[in-house]
Amino acid sequence: MKPREIQLDFGSENTSPVHPAFVAAVTSANVGFATNFEAEAWTERANQSLRAFFEHDSLQAFTVTTGTAANAIALGAMVPPYGTILCHWDAHIETDECGAPEMFSFGARQVPLAGEHGRLSPAAVSKHLTHARFGVVHSLQPTALSLTNLTEAGTAYTPGQIKELTDIAHRYGLGVHMDGARFANAAAAVSATPAQLSWKSGVDVLTLGTTKSGSFGVETIISFEEKYNTALAYLRKRSGHLVPKTRFLGAQLQAYMDDDLWLKNARHANEMARQLSQGLASLPGVELVHPVEGNEVFVRMPERMVNRLSEGGCKFQRDWRPEPHQHRFVCSWATSLEQVNALISVARDGAAQMPS
Amino acid sequence: MKPREIQLDFGSENTSPVHPAFVAAVTSANVGFATNFEAEAWTERANQSLRAFFEHDSLQAFTVTTGTAANAIALGAMVPPYGTILCHWDAHIETDECGAPEMFSFGARQVPLAGEHGRLSPAAVSKHLTHARFGVVHSLQPTALSLTNLTEAGTAYTPGQIKELTDIAHRYGLGVHMDGARFANAAAAVSATPAQLSWKSGVDVLTLGTTKSGSFGVETIISFEEKYNTALAYLRKRSGHLVPKTRFLGAQLQAYMDDDLWLKNARHANEMARQLSQGLASLPGVELVHPVEGNEVFVRMPERMVNRLSEGGCKFQRDWRPEPHQHRFVCSWATSLEQVNALISVARDGAAQMPS
Amino acid sequence: MKPREIQLDFGSENTSPVHPAFVAAVTSANVGFATNFEAEAWTERANQSLRAFFEHDSLQAFTVTTGTAANAIALGAMVPPYGTILCHWDAHIETDECGAPEMFSFGARQVPLAGEHGRLSPAAVSKHLTHARFGVVHSLQPTALSLTNLTEAGTAYTPGQIKELTDIAHRYGLGVHMDGARFANAAAAVSATPAQLSWKSGVDVLTLGTTKSGSFGVETIISFEEKYNTALAYLRKRSGHLVPKTRFLGAQLQAYMDDDLWLKNARHANEMARQLSQGLASLPGVELVHPVEGNEVFVRMPERMVNRLSEGGCKFQRDWRPEPHQHRFVCSWATSLEQVNALISVARDGAAQMPS
Amino acid sequence: MKPREIQLDFGSENTSPVHPAFVAAVTSANVGFATNFEAEAWTERANQSLRAFFEHDSLQAFTVTTGTAANAIALGAMVPPYGTILCHWDAHIETDECGAPEMFSFGARQVPLAGEHGRLSPAAVSKHLTHARFGVVHSLQPTALSLTNLTEAGTAYTPGQIKELTDIAHRYGLGVHMDGARFANAAAAVSATPAQLSWKSGVDVLTLGTTKSGSFGVETIISFEEKYNTALAYLRKRSGHLVPKTRFLGAQLQAYMDDDLWLKNARHANEMARQLSQGLASLPGVELVHPVEGNEVFVRMPERMVNRLSEGGCKFQRDWRPEPHQHRFVCSWATSLEQVNALISVARDGAAQMPS
Repeated sequence: MKPREIQLDFGSENTSPVHPAFVAAVTSANVGFATNFEAEAWTERANQSLRAFFEHDSLQAFTVTTGTAANAIALGAMVPPYGTILCHWDAHIETDECGAPEMFSFGARQVPLAGEHGRLSPAAVSKHLTHARFGVVHSLQPTALSLTNLTEAGTAYTPGQIKELTDIAHRYGLGVHMDGARFANAAAAVSATPAQLSWKSGVDVLTLGTTKSGSFGVETIISFEEKYNTALAYLRKRSGHLVPKTRFLGAQLQAYMDDDLWLKNARHANEMARQLSQGLASLPGVELVHPVEGNEVFVRMPERMVNRLSEGGCKFQRDWRPEPHQHRFVCSWATSLEQVNALISVARDGAAQMPS
Repeated sequence: MKPREIQLDFGSENTSPVHPAFVAAVTSANVGFATNFEAEAWTERANQSLRAFFEHDSLQAFTVTTGTAANAIALGAMVPPYGTILCHWDAHIETDECGAPEMFSFGARQVPLAGEHGRLSPAAVSKHLTHARFGVVHSLQPTALSLTNLTEAGTAYTPGQIKELTDIAHRYGLGVHMDGARFANAAAAVSATPAQLSWKSGVDVLTLGTTKSGSFGVETIISFEEKYNTALAYLRKRSGHLVPKTRFLGAQLQAYMDDDLWLKNARHANEMARQLSQGLASLPGVELVHPVEGNEVFVRMPERMVNRLSEGGCKFQRDWRPEPHQHRFVCSWATSLEQVNALISVARDGAAQMPS
Repeated sequence: MKPREIQLDFGSENTSPVHPAFVAAVTSANVGFATNFEAEAWTERANQSLRAFFEHDSLQAFTVTTGTAANAIALGAMVPPYGTILCHWDAHIETDECGAPEMFSFGARQVPLAGEHGRLSPAAVSKHLTHARFGVVHSLQPTALSLTNLTEAGTAYTPGQIKELTDIAHRYGLGVHMDGARFANAAAAVSATPAQLSWKSGVDVLTLGTTKSGSFGVETIISFEEKYNTALAYLRKRSGHLVPKTRFLGAQLQAYMDDDLWLKNARHANEMARQLSQGLASLPGVELVHPVEGNEVFVRMPERMVNRLSEGGCKFQRDWRPEPHQHRFVCSWATSLEQVNALISVARDGAAQMPS
Repeated sequence: MKPREIQLDFGSENTSPVHPAFVAAVTSANVGFATNFEAEAWTERANQSLRAFFEHDSLQAFTVTTGTAANAIALGAMVPPYGTILCHWDAHIETDECGAPEMFSFGARQVPLAGEHGRLSPAAVSKHLTHARFGVVHSLQPTALSLTNLTEAGTAYTPGQIKELTDIAHRYGLGVHMDGARFANAAAAVSATPAQLSWKSGVDVLTLGTTKSGSFGVETIISFEEKYNTALAYLRKRSGHLVPKTRFLGAQLQAYMDDDLWLKNARHANEMARQLSQGLASLPGVELVHPVEGNEVFVRMPERMVNRLSEGGCKFQRDWRPEPHQHRFVCSWATSLEQVNALISVARDGAAQMPS
């Protein structure tokens, strides 16, 4: 469709092509007949691998095809209709899922809280919970804390930072959900294991993304708490998210873990973002909005430079919410150094055109 | 995973491998970067093709990954919470979707009605609507009629039969939904065009399946009525069913239509079912439960024969609801005559063992 | 408003005036200031009285203003969205509440079952549960059994009949709800205590009506199972059913129990119905549809007689669902023997006009 | 129950006794039999009176028994599940209804916005709507603006202030809801007619409270926009809020309008609040938080004075949300000057005890 010229697409990991390992996984799984609805070898093998991957013997995994679904099913199983979900005011569940958590929890409310650079502030969480009217029927009851790692600002929580927040949540009886759409990038950023970034730090239910790591579209709800499992299973089916041909999801989830693909892809993407941010930051008038710890770069830049990038065919999130003049560039497994340098070069052109 | 011996899997079309054309479509679409969320060429092209396919200029299409999702989103957009959905008592939405239509309509009720061989009886529909308490707030209000074609009994509605039902529905102000999980098989069975089997016969919203035709998993909600489009669009997103990498769904939907793949696969599957039903019906003690018009065969057979089939590794739906001793065999694009004959042969063995 | 002539209104207990004891209760409670939302003496006293009334130390009571609310909140607290509620096909929750149980349970499904004269058939319940696909995510999961006593046919379950049904339900893990809109009439009919008709026979949550016993409108959800209490409390508030000035509800609930008002009113209403049924049944062409055990009379009668009654200003439920030519007459605390005889007299006129 | 000594209860209007006119209305309506479910003379008469009261020929009224219900049904009928409701961050629907609007709208979201002294800031509303992502499926869609008059800070919107806000809302296609729990107090405060404060200023649906004006508990949803009426009617029933014996609600609604009772009670309550606020403000260390325009007084006062009031048996909302050391006193039709002076006297005692 597109000319074979270099594509400067930094809009989202989801605009990238699918990584060959996922293509191979899917094609390899396409042999003969296989029972549907998870009673097949691929899903079973992936579930076994997940237990090793997370060093957790009794986790339950539920694959679906979108991150919005994974988050909404997880939160729907964790929170009663009269509950609240504490999250960062910039969380994807709050800003970009059209109220999916509200739908799946039958009307629970999200409570957006503050925190610098995308990380929820423990003080903000504590303050909210201290003033919450627990046990008062006129008031919705705090029931879950939802963290996002990588955060929406492209920063990464360390296990210690997660633990600090989940300790507060658990003290008040809340369950903890983690939106791990970019879980691999976070793990690469802070050099922590999947276990350290999840249940060992107090996460009860994780939604683990592989889509942004290069798969066709597989997200997995991983429950470390047995009490949520029944609701998760029925809610997945009831919301139309149990796909029939699960083997193709199981095979991709397996490929994600095999040969450290998840980590390699994340490291590459993070490194591209680091180089991109350095290149952009070296230009006059460009300012990084957040520390670049993962594969996302948020910058403020002169309007002329932004226009030059758009004219040059560069794709990125312009005027990214909520601040105007703040733009988002995302790198993926498929982003090449050539592309990064090309983008910087176009931006430099924009800088050059500016009155000094 | 499986030995390369012949697999006798007649459990569901969804246990079949994916047809090579869909594999090719997906791999071909995996070139370079492409905008996510439908703003890409594959979805746009599929939408154009759909308009030709259905001879309808203003239809709107919404791809998702499961049939349950497609049905639930369609009905959720068509029916208010205080509405009812009239359907056959054996409809998939009634028996196998864990209440997804109830979830997506926020508590609307399904009214299961009778009809022979899976086809809703126009008399039953008329009688229900005649006695419905329209305008009485104590009573849920009939709002949609849902038909399934192929029916759950493997029979096919003709355009005329559909029209008879939709006329009744429209007379009372109901919208009409069609569950077309096996739409291609129905079209092949009655030699009708997609348009004849849908909007030309009064269908307002169709859920068109490609999964059972051999794709990885693409179902499309096709709205012929503009008034439903806004709700459809938001409900799809809100329920987590707008996948990010839509190009792979669009490419498969295109492949379904290209070169009459949909029709070829359906005709093959239907023919295999015909041969299977003839072979089984020729055995002593075997009785066909429903006319075999599509790719499904429902039979009653001696218990000994059933056991022999199970022991012989044959997969099928044993004691298929709601009647015990009623079994379902499904053929797909991947079912070979060799497999059909092998199954009949095993069944014949079971027959031979019986006391004459 | 109405002329002081005799009113022949047998349409519903709810068309009766409010009994003077309830008027007195409300006026007596209207002294000075009182804390709102149940932190007042009237509700507290009623709750204490309820524990004696039901011989149950730990029941929790939740007053609301309609029976539909009481049923829906009860079932909403007992049943998850993926659950089903087994009930008689003629139950009020199924036929007359516009899907309130579906709304409050966020889409659970009601399964209407058969049973003669309004009583659920234990065999029908057993059969449904035997075939239910427990643990299969494609299928909604049976979670509650809902009984109505008096039944919608005006018959009464004995404690033994209740026990037989609740034993089946509990064996399969279902909770048991009882719609007791006419609980007093049932108790009067079978000479059983409130305890015998509820928790001692296996009822987990009862909705106890006082409205049809002559109050302004107070219905009480009585939970004998602690596990439902939190959900009940929040669901009542969240659905707008926690009234601020609870003292007036508490006072009426107290009046219901005081001096056996509940029983006296029920006995009177039942006796009026008995006399009415005998009088009508003695007329030519009149047939009782159900045994008259409480305060409702269901009859088939010649069309001419029906017309004569209507012309004579008699109010009753004509062509009561679902059978045409079946009519319902209801007696209440306010029905006098004079009214009963006057109605019979009008009906006799209708009979006399008929060709013999 | 309480000794006949003077009660110093300023906690809420709802702790007051019911005004004699409402008691008389209820007792007067309790004559003979009357059709249930609104097909009776009292509701019909009240509806006629409402049309004169609001100078609006085609309004539709729906009585219920709580303000939470009235608000939730109104908003549920106005807003789709994927909609948002803009309101003041201190609105009752946001802080005290346990998520009822979320339940009745099936998961719509409330967007709390700022504004001084309880009045929504037109700038805040404009800014939110300017940045709202209309037509983007990832984002919930602004659909309704909800105003509260009296505001939760006890101030009153003038017709002009309402108009300014509703103009903005309508420009963006939003419907406008007004929570009029204290509508009469607002009308008294700004000397405007009911019409001026509602539809003439752009309000589409009003929830008109009589409970805080001294009734037993009647709130009325008044729809000035026909398009909402069907949903309102079914949602009221479906949520269990259509009471059977409507005549007692209709009679109270009538009494509210008769002889300007609504206005007299509101003027009295407002005047008591004025005197209370003046008395308190004259004490050392006492500061009014908001202008006192209606019947509510918000003050900051020395802790010792607060303690003295509590010890003296005074009831009021201590540490009223969200600010600690901010207390709310409410006057009603039943508040006497004697009570006001007695409270001021106790407060003065507290002041006297303080170190000067």
